[in-house]
Amino acid sequence: MPPLRNDRLLRALRREPVDRTPVWIMRQAGRYLPEYRATRARAGSFLALMRSPELATEVTLQPLARFDLDAAILFSDILTVPDALGLGLHFVEGEGPRFERPLRSAADIDRLRAPDVERALPYVFDTVRMLRRELAGRVPLIGFAGSPWTLACYMVEGGGSADFRRVKGLSYTDPAALHRLLALLTDTLVDYLSAQAAAGAQALMVFDTWGGVLSTPGYREFSLAYQARLAQRLAGDPATRGLPLILFTKNAGRWLAEQAEVGCAALGVDWTQELADVRVATGGRVALQGNLDPIALFGSPERIRAEVARILESYGPGPGHVFNLGHGVLQQTDPEHVRVLVDAVHELSMPYHA
Amino acid sequence: MPPLRNDRLLRALRREPVDRTPVWIMRQAGRYLPEYRATRARAGSFLALMRSPELATEVTLQPLARFDLDAAILFSDILTVPDALGLGLHFVEGEGPRFERPLRSAADIDRLRAPDVERALPYVFDTVRMLRRELAGRVPLIGFAGSPWTLACYMVEGGGSADFRRVKGLSYTDPAALHRLLALLTDTLVDYLSAQAAAGAQALMVFDTWGGVLSTPGYREFSLAYQARLAQRLAGDPATRGLPLILFTKNAGRWLAEQAEVGCAALGVDWTQELADVRVATGGRVALQGNLDPIALFGSPERIRAEVARILESYGPGPGHVFNLGHGVLQQTDPEHVRVLVDAVHELSMPYHA
Repeated sequence: MPPLRNDRLLRALRREPVDRTPVWIMRQAGRYLPEYRATRARAGSFLALMRSPELATEVTLQPLARFDLDAAILFSDILTVPDALGLGLHFVEGEGPRFERPLRSAADIDRLRAPDVERALPYVFDTVRMLRRELAGRVPLIGFAGSPWTLACYMVEGGGSADFRRVKGLSYTDPAALHRLLALLTDTLVDYLSAQAAAGAQALMVFDTWGGVLSTPGYREFSLAYQARLAQRLAGDPATRGLPLILFTKNAGRWLAEQAEVGCAALGVDWTQELADVRVATGGRVALQGNLDPIALFGSPERIRAEVARILESYGPGPGHVFNLGHGVLQQTDPEHVRVLVDAVHELSMPYHA
Repeated sequence: MPPLRNDRLLRALRREPVDRTPVWIMRQAGRYLPEYRATRARAGSFLALMRSPELATEVTLQPLARFDLDAAILFSDILTVPDALGLGLHFVEGEGPRFERPLRSAADIDRLRAPDVERALPYVFDTVRMLRRELAGRVPLIGFAGSPWTLACYMVEGGGSADFRRVKGLSYTDPAALHRLLALLTDTLVDYLSAQAAAGAQALMVFDTWGGVLSTPGYREFSLAYQARLAQRLAGDPATRGLPLILFTKNAGRWLAEQAEVGCAALGVDWTQELADVRVATGGRVALQGNLDPIALFGSPERIRAEVARILESYGPGPGHVFNLGHGVLQQTDPEHVRVLVDAVHELSMPYHA
């Protein structure tokens, strides 16, 4: 493999000095880009796009051709793992993901068997290998997965939910069954992320999209404990040992200080928090990734630059900041505004690294 | 008017000693009760139910006939005010509220005129008067409204939203227009809550359901500033002066300490926070209302009692706690579990008031 020519992301995740704050964008390969929509149309469906290493590689690289981004992130979906567990993933247009066979009982949970992820999801690892070849050291490649709790949410609800009453109900009525599911998911995710690393992923991110819907004791017991177990297992795995791990719970709010203790390199921070507060609360033990409101990209270029300046100032001087949105970029976003953001981060962050 | 025989709620909101922690339940008059569903069926629609003082009074009183609750809350909807502003409220079955004429431009905002709320919404105040007669001093009656920000969300989005991109987009593209809308809504809400108080409401609650979707500076500028203005205006209004005001922002998280400074009697707290932490953060300056996870009512009676005990212990000894859920009761809830909750609060809270 050619050497990495832009290592800002990996250095920032290790809290080492950098010349400029690295920046990438959650869902940077996505529907806001016309070239993505064209490839998606050729593929015929989101699932076909994700399952084709050639097309998934193509869309992963599209934003890098446009913008001066400091990382690529594998184009895939967090629901590959439940699909590999046999739940039958499909997408309903305009409504998001659905499972044909959601988990409706403890018996459904106990019928699950950990899959051989290399056999079940070969296209994921083929895409990672192809991406590493195509990137040729330009920027690092981030692999990712959903958190055990977030995957359990989708698997029990059968899709998204407004109140998560089935999966949270299970946490109150049969917590032991939920723990069995979370343990199985954690085992599977270790294999899955390990295989992504073996194929070439250079950093890993775990998306805990729905941890924020739990109570504080519920978050500790059903989400954070399994993020911690996952982090510990990855730290001991030969393929993932030493790879920076980014944990992201949306709406983590007051739990960020606890989340910083589980053994990760960095925390993703949503746009509702102030990085200055989070940096104090986490005591410099982790890098922080975030946290522009995705809707801020609807503002004028001047307004976007002002928001970038505000967030850089909030994090303050010194290493350990990866600029990102606080959540995925929206499809209605003007791609030119993403360029304004990326360039503003590089330009305006220089004084913080002097 | 007969004297109030159960003043636990009002005493707790003023942080005065009580014998037991008062308890009421957000959406306590609602679809989880078969008698509510029967009245709703007779009315023909939610709007017809809400607009009939007789039927709205009937459903307001239903949970009090079943459970030993310490407060009644007017049966109505926060969207009466946008409806009075001419947006044309209707409900789509299974999808929630919609407006026929959402605000799509600054020109739409500037065409709005503050309504005469007494003429536009007579049924609300008739219901309050009828309820005070029917309650005859049994428990206090809570009046309520949506916060300016939350009403602006519905009015600009035209209904609910997954990302609030229109209204948050406006906060980035034309903040002055958004401020004009929020100021108009604040004026209207002062009149609306004042008229509820003149008709007999004995405490007031403002629901800021969507404040939590903002960034921290955005929350301060577009939500909290108008909660503060509303609180100040109500404190100076002859009809509302001295009435306890409860402010509730869902997902307020780290902003609760600031929210406690705006001049309210109490803060509603959602289930993601720990009352012990919030009590410290707010320094005892306000009473706290909350905060059981509504989904905890899906657990067994033993589990519900354990969660009640945990929350009472988290708040700790002394006055200033009003027990409630952290959000509205779900329609799938077993009414008998609500009874378990109410009775457990009264029974288990006695030692904290000894």
